[in-house]
Amino acid sequence: MTERILTGDRITGKLHLGHYVGSLKNRVELQHHYETYLLLADVQALTTHFENPVLIKENLHNVALDYLAVGMNPDKATIFIQSLIPEIAELATYFSMFVTVNSLRHNPTIKAEAVERGFQDMYYGFLGYPVSQAADITFCKATLVPVGEDQVPHIEQTRRIVRRFNQLYKPVLVEPRALVGEVPRLVGLDGNNKMSKSLGNAIHLDSSAEEVREKIKKATTDPARIHKTDIGNPEICPVYAYHQAFREEGSDEIYESCKKGQIGCAECKQKITHAINDLLEPMRERRIVYQNNPQRVNEILMSGTEKARLAAKETMQEVREAMSMNYFKK
Amino acid sequence: MTERILTGDRITGKLHLGHYVGSLKNRVELQHHYETYLLLADVQALTTHFENPVLIKENLHNVALDYLAVGMNPDKATIFIQSLIPEIAELATYFSMFVTVNSLRHNPTIKAEAVERGFQDMYYGFLGYPVSQAADITFCKATLVPVGEDQVPHIEQTRRIVRRFNQLYKPVLVEPRALVGEVPRLVGLDGNNKMSKSLGNAIHLDSSAEEVREKIKKATTDPARIHKTDIGNPEICPVYAYHQAFREEGSDEIYESCKKGQIGCAECKQKITHAINDLLEPMRERRIVYQNNPQRVNEILMSGTEKARLAAKETMQEVREAMSMNYFKK
Repeated sequence: MTERILTGDRITGKLHLGHYVGSLKNRVELQHHYETYLLLADVQALTTHFENPVLIKENLHNVALDYLAVGMNPDKATIFIQSLIPEIAELATYFSMFVTVNSLRHNPTIKAEAVERGFQDMYYGFLGYPVSQAADITFCKATLVPVGEDQVPHIEQTRRIVRRFNQLYKPVLVEPRALVGEVPRLVGLDGNNKMSKSLGNAIHLDSSAEEVREKIKKATTDPARIHKTDIGNPEICPVYAYHQAFREEGSDEIYESCKKGQIGCAECKQKITHAINDLLEPMRERRIVYQNNPQRVNEILMSGTEKARLAAKETMQEVREAMSMNYFKK
Repeated sequence: MTERILTGDRITGKLHLGHYVGSLKNRVELQHHYETYLLLADVQALTTHFENPVLIKENLHNVALDYLAVGMNPDKATIFIQSLIPEIAELATYFSMFVTVNSLRHNPTIKAEAVERGFQDMYYGFLGYPVSQAADITFCKATLVPVGEDQVPHIEQTRRIVRRFNQLYKPVLVEPRALVGEVPRLVGLDGNNKMSKSLGNAIHLDSSAEEVREKIKKATTDPARIHKTDIGNPEICPVYAYHQAFREEGSDEIYESCKKGQIGCAECKQKITHAINDLLEPMRERRIVYQNNPQRVNEILMSGTEKARLAAKETMQEVREAMSMNYFKK
């Protein structure tokens, strides 16, 4: 059996280097080995952004461009829009019948996220997003879901839902496996341990060479280091972290020279600026082609969505049949 | 503006005289005054019957026949199947983003039902059924929902959801009003204060004259009454309750003669048997016509569902536009 991957992002903003390091780089590689379904999760974005759907709309095309720019190949990956697959809502509704409220409340990732977002009282849709995620994964019969450790409880939830469904009705759904990989977290330009759009400490994938230069120039470094000859502490320097992430071969050298006070921050920043721009340059080239042809991007999204919709319809037919809901059939 | 009614039943069994007295009689009347959408709620039935969907399938056609037999006119009322309107699941998903878990938990009807059903731990779908109900009501822009007092909290929930949606996005949804009427409860044949299929104390609308006779014959009466001349207590006698429900003109007379020991239970039962059979006879006649033409019943359900689906698609287009989710439109 061909393995099929389901992956994607909540649409809450443009993607940045943190996403590249954390998942995009891996996805671009995976698409060559597995059939890939790539989800633009606009509905799930609503669980936290229902007050600002315009932001979702604005970023949907940006994220699609990010995917194409980064090297996702629309001939290999099915890029599709969640809200245009109403079967996902339908399937989630059926799953919700046999998932208990407590099993969702006790999901450690939901708990942690609720605390992080300062939810006093959880929204019903937010509490249930792992059920919706189970529908995202199962409607297209994905067998593998690339995730970090923190997402494993969701995949476990999906596996329990699939087993329960198949046992209650008929074994028509596929139990996916988590493809657990290291999800490196990229430090922000301000030294905050997470690069994040909302913290304003991110380098977006659509940055120009000049923007990268400017942002790196203003990046925090070891604050104790004033002169080039001061002994530096690369461990606490985000710029050094970028060397590790994007200049594998040269990062040891940087570490040593910083520690010995042999390289100044300006030179160090220049080197990483070049490296990041070398990484982003082919993305810029791909992006501009698509940006100049928005109709082509729409076509990619529409045909990907159509393909996903067909898979969804087939699955729902099997689901309805398994649940004895095929009323007009003998 | 024409008022539009949304009403319906969870499909968990054939309908009986309790349903007739409680809602059907009223609905048959209402269809002449209001545009009526009549929902066969198979999805909501799953909230409590997900382990037995075959029962839902078996009863879907029975309930449709009950509707037609009782006098619902398919030219006046749009009879449709909930699960075939996936837009309801979609709309409920959007509503779920801004409805809090606590507002659902504190819904007094949900609380009472959970206790009644002995739910230790609530299922997610069950907890959220008022959200789904809000989608049932709003997808077809119903303005009126005939309910009993116990259902008023659900309509209030729907009204809050509509107001919130219209305020968050655009005022495209219609705030429905509860058409609160008395919902008489019919006592069961065993004297239990609720006629209910699951208690085995019901007279179904599809009963033959002979079945009615047999059931009434075995009905509980005042247990202290042995001989015709014993003084009876009609207050505790279900047969007297049926006289009140179905023989308005004659029930005072029964009350008096029972109290005075002037009428025996056998005679009293004979009278009510006649009255119930007089009520059911025209239903049997209508039922047999449809029963002999199952294709016609399917057509009624399919065309009703199609009409409802069109309304749903229109509403969802407005909803998506209001939520800025019309991505491929300028």
